[in-house]
Amino acid sequence: MSANRLIYLPLGGAGEIGMNAYVYGYGPAGKERLILVDLGVAFPDMDTSPGVDLIMPDIAWLEERADRLEAIFITHAHEDHIGALAHLWPRLKKKVYARRFTATIGRLKFEEAGLPVDQITVVEARPAVTEAGPFTVQFVPVSHSIPESAALVIDTPAGRIVHSGDFKIDQTPIVGEGWDDARFQEIVKERPVKVLMCDSTNVFSPLPGRSEASLAEPLTELIKGAGGMVVATTFGSNVARLKTLAEAGRAADRTICVLGRAMKRMISVSEETGVLEGFPRTVTPEEAVDVARRNLMLLVTGSQGERRAASAQLSRGKYLGIEMKEGDMFLFSSKTIPGNERGVLRVWNAFSEMGVNVVDDSGGKYHVSGHANRPDLEHVHRLILPDMLIPMHGEHRHLREHVEIATEAGIAAEVATNGTMVDLTGDTPEIVEYIEAGRTYLDGTTMIGAMDGVVRDRIRMALNGHVLVTIILDEADEPMGDPWVELMGLPEVGKGSRPLSDTMEAELTDLVDGAGRKLLRDDDKFDEAITRTVRQVAMEEIGKKPEVTVVISRLALE
Amino acid sequence: MSANRLIYLPLGGAGEIGMNAYVYGYGPAGKERLILVDLGVAFPDMDTSPGVDLIMPDIAWLEERADRLEAIFITHAHEDHIGALAHLWPRLKKKVYARRFTATIGRLKFEEAGLPVDQITVVEARPAVTEAGPFTVQFVPVSHSIPESAALVIDTPAGRIVHSGDFKIDQTPIVGEGWDDARFQEIVKERPVKVLMCDSTNVFSPLPGRSEASLAEPLTELIKGAGGMVVATTFGSNVARLKTLAEAGRAADRTICVLGRAMKRMISVSEETGVLEGFPRTVTPEEAVDVARRNLMLLVTGSQGERRAASAQLSRGKYLGIEMKEGDMFLFSSKTIPGNERGVLRVWNAFSEMGVNVVDDSGGKYHVSGHANRPDLEHVHRLILPDMLIPMHGEHRHLREHVEIATEAGIAAEVATNGTMVDLTGDTPEIVEYIEAGRTYLDGTTMIGAMDGVVRDRIRMALNGHVLVTIILDEADEPMGDPWVELMGLPEVGKGSRPLSDTMEAELTDLVDGAGRKLLRDDDKFDEAITRTVRQVAMEEIGKKPEVTVVISRLALE
Repeated sequence: MSANRLIYLPLGGAGEIGMNAYVYGYGPAGKERLILVDLGVAFPDMDTSPGVDLIMPDIAWLEERADRLEAIFITHAHEDHIGALAHLWPRLKKKVYARRFTATIGRLKFEEAGLPVDQITVVEARPAVTEAGPFTVQFVPVSHSIPESAALVIDTPAGRIVHSGDFKIDQTPIVGEGWDDARFQEIVKERPVKVLMCDSTNVFSPLPGRSEASLAEPLTELIKGAGGMVVATTFGSNVARLKTLAEAGRAADRTICVLGRAMKRMISVSEETGVLEGFPRTVTPEEAVDVARRNLMLLVTGSQGERRAASAQLSRGKYLGIEMKEGDMFLFSSKTIPGNERGVLRVWNAFSEMGVNVVDDSGGKYHVSGHANRPDLEHVHRLILPDMLIPMHGEHRHLREHVEIATEAGIAAEVATNGTMVDLTGDTPEIVEYIEAGRTYLDGTTMIGAMDGVVRDRIRMALNGHVLVTIILDEADEPMGDPWVELMGLPEVGKGSRPLSDTMEAELTDLVDGAGRKLLRDDDKFDEAITRTVRQVAMEEIGKKPEVTVVISRLALE
Repeated sequence: MSANRLIYLPLGGAGEIGMNAYVYGYGPAGKERLILVDLGVAFPDMDTSPGVDLIMPDIAWLEERADRLEAIFITHAHEDHIGALAHLWPRLKKKVYARRFTATIGRLKFEEAGLPVDQITVVEARPAVTEAGPFTVQFVPVSHSIPESAALVIDTPAGRIVHSGDFKIDQTPIVGEGWDDARFQEIVKERPVKVLMCDSTNVFSPLPGRSEASLAEPLTELIKGAGGMVVATTFGSNVARLKTLAEAGRAADRTICVLGRAMKRMISVSEETGVLEGFPRTVTPEEAVDVARRNLMLLVTGSQGERRAASAQLSRGKYLGIEMKEGDMFLFSSKTIPGNERGVLRVWNAFSEMGVNVVDDSGGKYHVSGHANRPDLEHVHRLILPDMLIPMHGEHRHLREHVEIATEAGIAAEVATNGTMVDLTGDTPEIVEYIEAGRTYLDGTTMIGAMDGVVRDRIRMALNGHVLVTIILDEADEPMGDPWVELMGLPEVGKGSRPLSDTMEAELTDLVDGAGRKLLRDDDKFDEAITRTVRQVAMEEIGKKPEVTVVISRLALE
């Protein structure tokens, strides 16, 4: 009889911040029964993924083993944890379990995608349990920056795992349950924890994290001191922050108006599911227009400078009838995620041009992070006392730093990036296999592999421009008319102000005229010769080597 | 007789950090004699300027008035102040004045470009003066992050201007002259300052700046504590930092090796011009290979994660025979410029995967800025006591904040972004005209306007992909063969796994078959119909609207 083993395999989220997807397995090697924790997206950027809509983990490995997959658990409703669920679920078709708020968000996504909402089951917090093959799973409330975040206690015959999910230590989180050491002491007392999979996002932040509640006073003071209209942005899902901001606005006699579909959805789902109570009454944009500027406060999406979100729209002019003016205040109650700086500064500068006073969190007063900082992580290590620690939710540098901290505390720890299968059966984590674990792009309505070459071609066209050459040959391989060149993304003129396409066409005509029958007959070789000529001319004339597409038409004349 | 006026016109650097170019004029309106201060570049990015090599100010306005231009003054040798000089000088052809170090860098650029190096004149620091039409200009040493930075005292019949250049307040800058209040007190005593044009980069930094000298101790300590090889990066032109780093390395018994052409050039020019003395002896990469790792320290380019610089090369593997290994240390003795975060983190994570310990300045110990912080700016305002202040070297938000500070101190101040002509003759700055002042791109070897559409097309191809359609018609407008489709940067298959190009070709064949003679004869309308069809199919099949290029070939058959 082959021995059972306990395995862990991140398919996303380990080696990046985003597209979380973690697989656990228990059973004989190669026959483990599996569960999946989270199925999120990452966001594209112009440098590496132009034109792409969403980035998702490549779940090919899991799809091939879908018969062994017992269930999917979602820790919380942030897009990097739930965003790929509706897109990839049809390839897995397994029951999804989540707490009420998360499940409601998930069901909305399923509804939009035409998927069966009854496949998402609401589970209560621990002590409630969900059985999934050899796994028994409990949802443990933790504080984060979205309602009803959960850590998972995953019991297996080989031992207990705590999967932290995203969390921070916050006893007064404004919305939802505060962090509670006792909750985890009880878990540990009940059964010692074999492995802790732990959020690593803020491992480089040296000071203890601050509570959401600490923001109420500075925000209220700030807004009370504002003259014109106040517009504040934060993540739409940070319902606690929205409440704090709205209450600060009310304290300053301001009527609240929420702009942005995602933000409105989060508030309404929070109210429906009972996690949010006492949110101030809001007015519609149409009603807001009639409110005096100094009695109005907008809560808007777009804290990361997203071009289509409300904040960017307002920075470009009138939006839904509302316009920012000199003397108004715009508040980023948020942190800029690395890579989004340019977009955020674009919005800031546009507001500056309007005479709007922009306030951000550079002073550390108007935003707190949703993730545990280094001392908080150390506290949790001591609290949970795991035999092993595998850091997750981080770039390589975060995972490595987290391993170092754990190791110093005497915990066996290992960096396991996406695709690294770790055997957790023994006393120390043992890497047993590397799985092909890449990225899948949602591009329009199509899924494409990150390595398919599609995006590579886009990047090349953006960097080098694109030249199209059309050549028509008759049945005798005689050219009919001259070669034709079209340019896209290239300067029209080269040296001496000659049109670049003219120069290329002249050189190509020479090439064709001088070419032997053998070259003209061989599509590949002819294409190659044309491409080479075009690139040579381009290099000579404009100092660039463009992408070249050649269309050789061979006409059969009757 | 029309009255003389004193004008200021930024062509670059006001409304962005980069491509500095400031025009001053004195004389009758429209006939002012002009000088230009600085002629720098900005750097492209994938979001807004893919494929572009360098961004420069559009100097069309100045070129048209080159007969009125007296001279060009360069304050210091940073690329955003001198980088466009060799590219744009042929369109201005006026004498260039700079201090020795800056002039030497400028001459190297002229040499490479085949321009006459004797057009660059070395000037000594104040009290030496350069006459340029109605302007008398003095170079005043200031501390910054490159040797021999200068503020300019510009005397005109209408009053004295101080053009701060880039500066910080640093009495102990390691290399070159320290900041000296007395120098400016003397300038003010000699003749009161009418206008201060002032660096705004760090206006949002609330604490006084720190001296370059404060880094020696923490850097020495850090490097002494390192086990393996130490590799440090900073800006190649920050010669003071390079000296501090090299000396810290020597104090830890390490041999110094410099990698990166730009950095080596800066060190050698500094030594040649006498601004740098006592730089520790360095070895070549070939020699470095034979040095024990714990006795070796590399100084490398690439603090901003630039893909081709030494740091990125080392993060990808062996470079010039040298390889980073587990236990080595990589130090960013630098700050990440907003927008470069992704590149820097890519390098960091790659090193993390190698087991290299990466140290950055997040603790504020291993880097100091080269620009004056808010309290330092306020100090300079009080020191120079100008009647007017025009902030420069900043995005709009910086300029606006700087105006606010000045206004609070009772100084008449105005935001003047690129293209804003300001009349400084009176007691307050008066905006008199807006000039077309855009950006020019160096793209390969060609200059293209930012608004030419070339880069817009590249961005569109990157976001949407590119479809090429070829259709051949005979003299009677009868189609010859079927329409042909080529895809670039698009998924090959659409819904139901049908090849996308097949579906497009089928639809286009239907279009052609059903088209009347009138449509087939009209190139524009036919092109439009084809484009519309292709986009409809693409939207249907892959949910995207690609760029489309149509080539209609009309064959004249004999």
